[in-house]
Amino acid sequence: MGAETGSTEDSADRFGHDPAFAVHEGGKLTVRPTRGIASREDLALTYTPGVARVSSAIAAEPALARRFTWAPRVVAVVSDGTAVLGLGDIGPSAALPVMEGKACLFSEFAGLSSVPVVLSTTDVDQIVETVVAIAPSFGGINLEDISAPRCFEIEERLRERLDIPVMHDDQHGTAIVVLAALRNAARVTGRGLGDLRVVVAGAGAAGVACTKILLEAGIGDLAVADSRGVIHTGRDDLTPVKRWVADNTNRAGYAGTMVGALEGADVYLGLSGGSVPEAAIAAMAPDCIVFSLANPTPEVDPEMAARYAAVVATGRSDLPNQINNVLAFPGVFRGAIDAGATAITEQMKIAAAEAIAGVVGDDLAPGYIVPSPLDRRVATAVAEAVAACARTEDVTV
Amino acid sequence: MGAETGSTEDSADRFGHDPAFAVHEGGKLTVRPTRGIASREDLALTYTPGVARVSSAIAAEPALARRFTWAPRVVAVVSDGTAVLGLGDIGPSAALPVMEGKACLFSEFAGLSSVPVVLSTTDVDQIVETVVAIAPSFGGINLEDISAPRCFEIEERLRERLDIPVMHDDQHGTAIVVLAALRNAARVTGRGLGDLRVVVAGAGAAGVACTKILLEAGIGDLAVADSRGVIHTGRDDLTPVKRWVADNTNRAGYAGTMVGALEGADVYLGLSGGSVPEAAIAAMAPDCIVFSLANPTPEVDPEMAARYAAVVATGRSDLPNQINNVLAFPGVFRGAIDAGATAITEQMKIAAAEAIAGVVGDDLAPGYIVPSPLDRRVATAVAEAVAACARTEDVTV
Repeated sequence: MGAETGSTEDSADRFGHDPAFAVHEGGKLTVRPTRGIASREDLALTYTPGVARVSSAIAAEPALARRFTWAPRVVAVVSDGTAVLGLGDIGPSAALPVMEGKACLFSEFAGLSSVPVVLSTTDVDQIVETVVAIAPSFGGINLEDISAPRCFEIEERLRERLDIPVMHDDQHGTAIVVLAALRNAARVTGRGLGDLRVVVAGAGAAGVACTKILLEAGIGDLAVADSRGVIHTGRDDLTPVKRWVADNTNRAGYAGTMVGALEGADVYLGLSGGSVPEAAIAAMAPDCIVFSLANPTPEVDPEMAARYAAVVATGRSDLPNQINNVLAFPGVFRGAIDAGATAITEQMKIAAAEAIAGVVGDDLAPGYIVPSPLDRRVATAVAEAVAACARTEDVTV
Repeated sequence: MGAETGSTEDSADRFGHDPAFAVHEGGKLTVRPTRGIASREDLALTYTPGVARVSSAIAAEPALARRFTWAPRVVAVVSDGTAVLGLGDIGPSAALPVMEGKACLFSEFAGLSSVPVVLSTTDVDQIVETVVAIAPSFGGINLEDISAPRCFEIEERLRERLDIPVMHDDQHGTAIVVLAALRNAARVTGRGLGDLRVVVAGAGAAGVACTKILLEAGIGDLAVADSRGVIHTGRDDLTPVKRWVADNTNRAGYAGTMVGALEGADVYLGLSGGSVPEAAIAAMAPDCIVFSLANPTPEVDPEMAARYAAVVATGRSDLPNQINNVLAFPGVFRGAIDAGATAITEQMKIAAAEAIAGVVGDDLAPGYIVPSPLDRRVATAVAEAVAACARTEDVTV
């Protein structure tokens, strides 16, 4: 056999200083048979002629595919590479390491197989048709790093067309973990979600999804700001999604800036990048909560925030209270798949958030409102909660 | 974590009598990370923030994707389920066990990862667009069990659109192994390919591809028959592909039946199913060669064939001289990928056939014209031959 392509022949090269490149040498995933093929009999059972009997049985009784193929236990991680981490529109090949990483996490935390599918098109219709075409190969579709507002339409149309779970993780994975963290942040400061007035900075994928789940979970009040200020019904520059936001948030009809809206607010939820002046944080309510999730540079400096806020959370792994999607997506898909769910509903997401919050339990503290991303209990708890919810919601096959 | 779906809870059920079903319980493949994620540092290198540095590097220098992603070492096994084994148009889910089996063989014999992609569409345009859309995820496309004549157009258009190897295995995998077997069958009977007059029964995917490779390899003469008889230029019922066959074969312009064409022929190559009367085989030339590849029931009864033919080969694993595609496709893709080939050319296929034939070496005998499908030397030899050919043909990246 020839040498492995992408070999390490030049391992002492310009990438040798950074261990991230060593980890990515040759890629991060491998597909392997569950059983070896050592004998003619193995070959005759795994492949022809034995496989023909299994295929015939499925052709006669399609439900058997759930039992005798791998598809129900494989999640496709689909991206067009248009909104990758903080890097933006870097295209499918450059996005692939991120999708491989996500697939690794599905395996590590939920025992699911996962296949990255990066696309050479950014056209909404083509993406939808492509995913519909390949869907019989998979048990779930995790949409990833697709830019707003295209991501909203793509997810919505795929949910309509497919009878397997579809979830855009940048929206809902983030929203689930934010809800979990906010529930515990409220609890540790002696409040309920209904007591909180929230300012969401950012009306992209994550901002809109957080808005929806917080409203569904009974948040007190909520305003969303984009780069032009707080979204309100009087603006004439709104996309359909932002129009929905205007119609369902900001009951006071505040029409000013994000900084202005922070005055007296209980929660700042930063999902936008940029930076927030200290005076704005200082003007928030007592015992306020600051979730500043831009990575690697939070919108609010965490040390500064700590001078005013009772609870501070970021997206960074080197600080307490890391809001990390890995707390949600492995268990959400695992639970949905275990239950045979045909969709991931809003209630299933809320159940996931409650399960994440619940793992913290009695150890709850201002510096420990969410479990560690490495806490193996989380995916199990989330999967069980999501599966139980799916069964009561009657969205199972 | 919930119970594995597709569990064995009813293992003593109606499928318990057949070990093929036990082998398929839960599917035959798994995707796993190449490195575990046990620490925060592992997480920070495999996923954010470390992965961002790798993605940035690829965005700046796209050729790095070949080194730092898994895509170049993954073959998609793509099928629409329209021509599965001898079962016909059974659809994508029922076809999936076959594609999973193929992926197992890529792993076992060539150390390549492989992902089955079964499609919910049978439309040629949609299949082409879908595969083009997902192509950045893969290093090669193995088309499988797509019915003729659609398979010809799909392969041709994908070869034009993509710069990674694309091969319809039912065509070219079969053709490569048939050429290898025929080369050795000629040798063991003291002839060269140029001495042989061949009758190909079947003008589907395999029949057309075998015709092309045999012509390219210098076969003496060749006639192809479909269900209406031998294909000749005077017929007015020919598809474009059969028109090509008419223009390039059957130099004598024979216009009769397949059975008639066999009179005095040196080789019968059965790729059609059905059955051939004993008198037709008896009328072939002395020391004739019978390859009867329909499965599980060869067109020519092997025991009967042995009364007339010097060499008999079938597709069956329980008889000598099994013509099995697994001798070709793992090594062909491995070699193409190792060389960074942007296509699989006719010369690369011929090199593969010669490598397969060469493994037999001095053990050549009428009952041993091709290696065992389990012979681990074959994929290595094929990969080396194909890679060397790709480099001389200048089709590498």
